[in-house]
Amino acid sequence: MDVSFISELKSIVGEEHTLADKESLACYGYDSTPEYESRPGAVVLPANEEEICRIMARCHAAGVPVTPRGSGTNLSGGSLGRPEGVVVQTSRLNSIVEIDEENLTATVQPGVVTSALHRAVEAKGLFYPPDPGSMNISTIGGNVAENAGGLRGLKYGVTADYVMGLHTALPDGSLLRTGGKAVKDVAGYNLNQLLVSSEGTLGLFTEVTVKLIPKPQAKKTMLVHFPVLENAALAVSHIVAARVIPATLEFMDRVTVKCIEDYAKVGLPLDVEAVLLIEVDGHPAQVEEDAVAVRRICAEHHCSSFQTAADADEALKLATARRVALSSLARVKPTTILEDATVPRSCIAPMVKFIQDTARKYNLTIGTFGHAGDGNLHPTCLTDERDKDEIARAHKAFEEIFDTALAMGGTITGEHGVGLSKKKYLPRLVGESGIRVMQGIKQAFDPTGILNPGKVF
Amino acid sequence: MDVSFISELKSIVGEEHTLADKESLACYGYDSTPEYESRPGAVVLPANEEEICRIMARCHAAGVPVTPRGSGTNLSGGSLGRPEGVVVQTSRLNSIVEIDEENLTATVQPGVVTSALHRAVEAKGLFYPPDPGSMNISTIGGNVAENAGGLRGLKYGVTADYVMGLHTALPDGSLLRTGGKAVKDVAGYNLNQLLVSSEGTLGLFTEVTVKLIPKPQAKKTMLVHFPVLENAALAVSHIVAARVIPATLEFMDRVTVKCIEDYAKVGLPLDVEAVLLIEVDGHPAQVEEDAVAVRRICAEHHCSSFQTAADADEALKLATARRVALSSLARVKPTTILEDATVPRSCIAPMVKFIQDTARKYNLTIGTFGHAGDGNLHPTCLTDERDKDEIARAHKAFEEIFDTALAMGGTITGEHGVGLSKKKYLPRLVGESGIRVMQGIKQAFDPTGILNPGKVF
Repeated sequence: MDVSFISELKSIVGEEHTLADKESLACYGYDSTPEYESRPGAVVLPANEEEICRIMARCHAAGVPVTPRGSGTNLSGGSLGRPEGVVVQTSRLNSIVEIDEENLTATVQPGVVTSALHRAVEAKGLFYPPDPGSMNISTIGGNVAENAGGLRGLKYGVTADYVMGLHTALPDGSLLRTGGKAVKDVAGYNLNQLLVSSEGTLGLFTEVTVKLIPKPQAKKTMLVHFPVLENAALAVSHIVAARVIPATLEFMDRVTVKCIEDYAKVGLPLDVEAVLLIEVDGHPAQVEEDAVAVRRICAEHHCSSFQTAADADEALKLATARRVALSSLARVKPTTILEDATVPRSCIAPMVKFIQDTARKYNLTIGTFGHAGDGNLHPTCLTDERDKDEIARAHKAFEEIFDTALAMGGTITGEHGVGLSKKKYLPRLVGESGIRVMQGIKQAFDPTGILNPGKVF
Repeated sequence: MDVSFISELKSIVGEEHTLADKESLACYGYDSTPEYESRPGAVVLPANEEEICRIMARCHAAGVPVTPRGSGTNLSGGSLGRPEGVVVQTSRLNSIVEIDEENLTATVQPGVVTSALHRAVEAKGLFYPPDPGSMNISTIGGNVAENAGGLRGLKYGVTADYVMGLHTALPDGSLLRTGGKAVKDVAGYNLNQLLVSSEGTLGLFTEVTVKLIPKPQAKKTMLVHFPVLENAALAVSHIVAARVIPATLEFMDRVTVKCIEDYAKVGLPLDVEAVLLIEVDGHPAQVEEDAVAVRRICAEHHCSSFQTAADADEALKLATARRVALSSLARVKPTTILEDATVPRSCIAPMVKFIQDTARKYNLTIGTFGHAGDGNLHPTCLTDERDKDEIARAHKAFEEIFDTALAMGGTITGEHGVGLSKKKYLPRLVGESGIRVMQGIKQAFDPTGILNPGKVF
């Protein structure tokens, strides 16, 4: 990148917050997504909204691409910059600006880590439900850009359901303020919700106001083993059809369970085909009744073991099994391709079976876990990117998995975004008119195309 | 309208479903919004999605404006067509296509009446929460186009929170399918949520899939009188700050209470400054506890009477007081200007006071009622459009009310839409960049501007 342009960046954010040396840029050459690498021209770490707007205006004038980056946990290559472009790293904007107990809102800067927000609001008896797997490192700005989900999505929804207000720096450096603390607002198009999940292609968030809810009074955590996979999947459908909405209804298959046990030694049995982690929460009386219903339905589907956590420590231990699923799988082989094909909840059983059949067909190791209550599965292929043949088979397998998800009325990504890695599938989902309209929207926000170019489309 | 074009419309939807005679068109010359009239060139009542797409394609080719219309209850002039244009009336598309008990979704045609959907899903133990005041005549298509709210918004949110999938006829006659039964979907921009509240300016809905939830097991309805207005408003804030989230938390001021009593004779006292209708629902144990907390907080704020409905019939009677508020006000004078200025919940007290002061300042009768828990108030001016001087004063008063709502961090419309009647205020809320981006979005969907022209911007 041109030295004089780097000097201009330094004049905006300061010398020490502008990275352009080889070693620093190497660190920003990848994110959590396997198989993608791209070293940016420079990285800036702005201190505030005003600096972000100035960076945008400068890059816009010079035609320099800008890629926002939180913690790079998106899993779709979304935070990789261009060699000729600038990465805007939001980690210095990490203040919780306000927790408003009367309006039940929190206003935060984009670089606040998700679990830090959890802790801050829970200390006041409030609750911010979205809890992506990466919540201990992911940022709220990234969560909003990707519309992050998590383990509590079934009952509480996803990040989009909590975004009330945004400050967004547009490519020309102007600041767009949308929504706020009023819980209802239908004035004009819903730009808030359009910006959520826009993957850094429409604007760069400088402040986020989220909705909070009262913290549930009670919770019960259950871990259930099933010798027959279809029965676990049927139990998921039947729990929801019985009008019980658990906060968490997570699934792990045999491959995943074995890897978790090898790594974390939490005492999972190795002879089961599936494990469900189920958490019900709310009023204590409701929790008791829901837990009884869950136990009855799991028994009807021939579970071989049903553990209920006696206390918070044990609950944490049971939940840990699911929380470490990705890390456990990731250590087995050098490359971990984690996908998030999503189907209507009623299709969980055939979808899991199709994934397993496909793994066999292509001679691959695929562990599947995920948010079964949401129909949001994470088939995870354990592979090695140096093994070109296996990688080619993995891509074929995922292509079939995505096409099957679409045929079932599902989608190509439930929570990780399109980014670079799923661009080729998007037209299959949204069709020609969908792509045309989305390109028009991109044009409306970013006429010169400097924002996170190459992503989504 | 050109006779040959009307013939073309007849060839698509049939002779008996094409209205072009003077009497029929007169009926479509107004909607529920006072002070606006515009007689369309023709009205068509298509039978299905395919006919809608064909109408759109034909109008697009001929450059003829198209305005969709459900029941015309939007209150912002949104469903008024152009003299040179066609109104597409959706009342024949009134089938509930499917209630999916496993995925907890309902798929309906746009002309289904909101309360008909309520009854159909409640018969299966399910619940579709959005309940706009007009629910006995309003349609789901209109609810989606306006993002209708209702009396249960505080706990359950608004229409947008329940829209999972849409079929939308675009101006060129192509059909856009977005979302579906998968509860998570982040593939590309969130067109679903962009289309919700787009007020018929981006596309015409031909099918809607909504999320359902289990029907709450229990409900308790309370009606509370307050001699001091500020105390009622403070009680609202304090109930929510105490982590109690009622399903319904509605406010009526003295003017409204008097009109309701004159009309419906439900036994409301005439010597109070404010009445709150409060409903808590959920698990019976939760309902009991919430009701106790509500009663305590209302007592702390010096309520003069606290009634709890003994049974469902009495609950209905108490709730009726609020449900008939608009009809009660509307019969007092020939013209009823109902607005929906919305503020953060914590600003309810100063906002109600400002409205009353403004009414006095301009010598107007303004009754205020609305969704206090949402900060969504309906100041309702009882006037006569033939009294030019009073109408001018009413407009001045509302201008001040909107500006004050904005200054408090609120918005110009919480649930009625911008339509024709609030166009002038939109730039004050969203700013120059907001308008520019919205115009770009309009351009992306409707490059020739045939869809509901003149609305929103």
